[in-house]
Amino acid sequence: MDEHKHYPIDSAGRAVESNVPIVNADISVDSARSHVLAGMSRFETINYVYVTDAGGNLVGVLSIKELFRADKAKKISEIMKKDVIRVHPYSDQERAVVLSLRRSIKAVPVVDHDGKFLGVIPSDRVLSILHSEHIEDLLHVVGVQKSLHEVQSLGTESAYELFRRRIPWLLIGLIAGVLAAWLIRSFQFILEQELLLAAFIPAIVYLSDAVGNQTQVLFIRNLTFQELFKMSSYAWREVRIGALTAATLAVIFSAIGGAISGSREIAATLGITLVFSILAAMGVAMFVPWLLLKFNQDPALASGPFSTALRDISSLFIYFTVASLVLKSLS
Amino acid sequence: MDEHKHYPIDSAGRAVESNVPIVNADISVDSARSHVLAGMSRFETINYVYVTDAGGNLVGVLSIKELFRADKAKKISEIMKKDVIRVHPYSDQERAVVLSLRRSIKAVPVVDHDGKFLGVIPSDRVLSILHSEHIEDLLHVVGVQKSLHEVQSLGTESAYELFRRRIPWLLIGLIAGVLAAWLIRSFQFILEQELLLAAFIPAIVYLSDAVGNQTQVLFIRNLTFQELFKMSSYAWREVRIGALTAATLAVIFSAIGGAISGSREIAATLGITLVFSILAAMGVAMFVPWLLLKFNQDPALASGPFSTALRDISSLFIYFTVASLVLKSLS
Repeated sequence: MDEHKHYPIDSAGRAVESNVPIVNADISVDSARSHVLAGMSRFETINYVYVTDAGGNLVGVLSIKELFRADKAKKISEIMKKDVIRVHPYSDQERAVVLSLRRSIKAVPVVDHDGKFLGVIPSDRVLSILHSEHIEDLLHVVGVQKSLHEVQSLGTESAYELFRRRIPWLLIGLIAGVLAAWLIRSFQFILEQELLLAAFIPAIVYLSDAVGNQTQVLFIRNLTFQELFKMSSYAWREVRIGALTAATLAVIFSAIGGAISGSREIAATLGITLVFSILAAMGVAMFVPWLLLKFNQDPALASGPFSTALRDISSLFIYFTVASLVLKSLS
Repeated sequence: MDEHKHYPIDSAGRAVESNVPIVNADISVDSARSHVLAGMSRFETINYVYVTDAGGNLVGVLSIKELFRADKAKKISEIMKKDVIRVHPYSDQERAVVLSLRRSIKAVPVVDHDGKFLGVIPSDRVLSILHSEHIEDLLHVVGVQKSLHEVQSLGTESAYELFRRRIPWLLIGLIAGVLAAWLIRSFQFILEQELLLAAFIPAIVYLSDAVGNQTQVLFIRNLTFQELFKMSSYAWREVRIGALTAATLAVIFSAIGGAISGSREIAATLGITLVFSILAAMGVAMFVPWLLLKFNQDPALASGPFSTALRDISSLFIYFTVASLVLKSLS
């Protein structure tokens, strides 16, 4: 596919295979068959026959099976499927994968902005794009910088090269950790009053983060792959799940925390904190990807370590604010 | 594909398509062509022609293009590719996907234990398996219980059903949080001596965990998709990356922590802790998936919230042990 180097990296145009059966809409089924048979030694992929008009515009598609089952005398335009999905050469390759998955088709047609048919992205290529895309997403979740076309070289880089890819997100994590330390230090007066509050920091952070991660991964998947996605009904279901989850965890955690610390102030703080921090984490988990989508960005960008850091700091802030209010009112 | 219901769910046998071109190895290229052309109205996928012997065993494969380019008089056995990849009907569907990706083939042949050819897993099916598999992996990372065939229904469950899928891992997280609280309480004497140690708990836990996650995701991907995976050279490279990462983060964190706390004991504790906790997290991140693979389990099982909890507790233990040693020796 060397002739496609002028399209951007990761664009659909880069992956086009043009050696496929193409017939004119006006010819008969019989001559279309002869045309396909004459090209058998040339086609790279032949599950579908693509139909164009006199100007080379894609106007229909049919499977090889349909072509050989149809009445010989009919015209191609009578038997072709007119509703053809397509991508533009400058679209992101992921677009082709999403369409291929939603419609269960084996190859995705590529059509330029004038409607001219350029070829298809063959199934093996769609598969490898999906695979690279998922690895890219996974790496993104853990904060390793890799673009789609670099995923291929995964596993062959030098130690220093990998270090360089991994360290930037860790430094962001470090900054978040320093902010958290600064935040906790500014609540030092509460810690002096009730030292055992420190013991529950990991649990508060971990639980809110875990719920937020679940919400975010499910949300991003639905956003990307559901054809009829309705934000309002989805968010309403999540709110109910969130309320159920927060209530369950808060009751149990408050009881155990009270038993460990022997303090009703701590028990109350833990319960109240968990309700608010879980709901806040879920809110952030849906708001950020939704915002990215509104601005035409990939919602998966939201799943990086940055949002984890953000949720952690918000949980800590809620924890110590609730603690200072509870300790003040109960003492 | 109703006739395959006797194979286990998620097995390759369930996804078999048997309407594909099959020819005998002993016939001529010319008669193979006639056979393929006669079946054009029947085949579901026709990129490859599968070659069997008299007993129906798969002995070779060739592309349609090769069939129509070859010398008419030759025998199929002379031009076919003999090294055919294959899966068994009882293998996991993921196996077919891995083979398809490694070899860039469009459909994966399925052969029973006697060598008899059953059909192929077509490319659109391979694509949807890969997609479900990746979603399953992603959900697993965040602790949502879903098996491969249930991924299809994603987005349509009731709030209560989703709550039921999400709560078990959160309860495990809750137990881990309680263990962490208990651990910190048992180091209460250190906290009383140096209250500001509490401020750095989130940073220590977060950073070790982040490095561990990066290591684990990269490791599991390489383990699954690299044909020639060498544990020793991989681990050696990771150790070098780990040393570089731990040293970099430890120096910076120690300096900032010292500045925030104004205490050289805390600065020393933070630096030493980070080196050990990062190396421990990386060790766990490679050891658990490797162990799972040794016992023929999916290494991706290691990426659940359970291992996060394990790493968090080990980091806290290292932190407070180092703190008590440093505070004792410097005071």
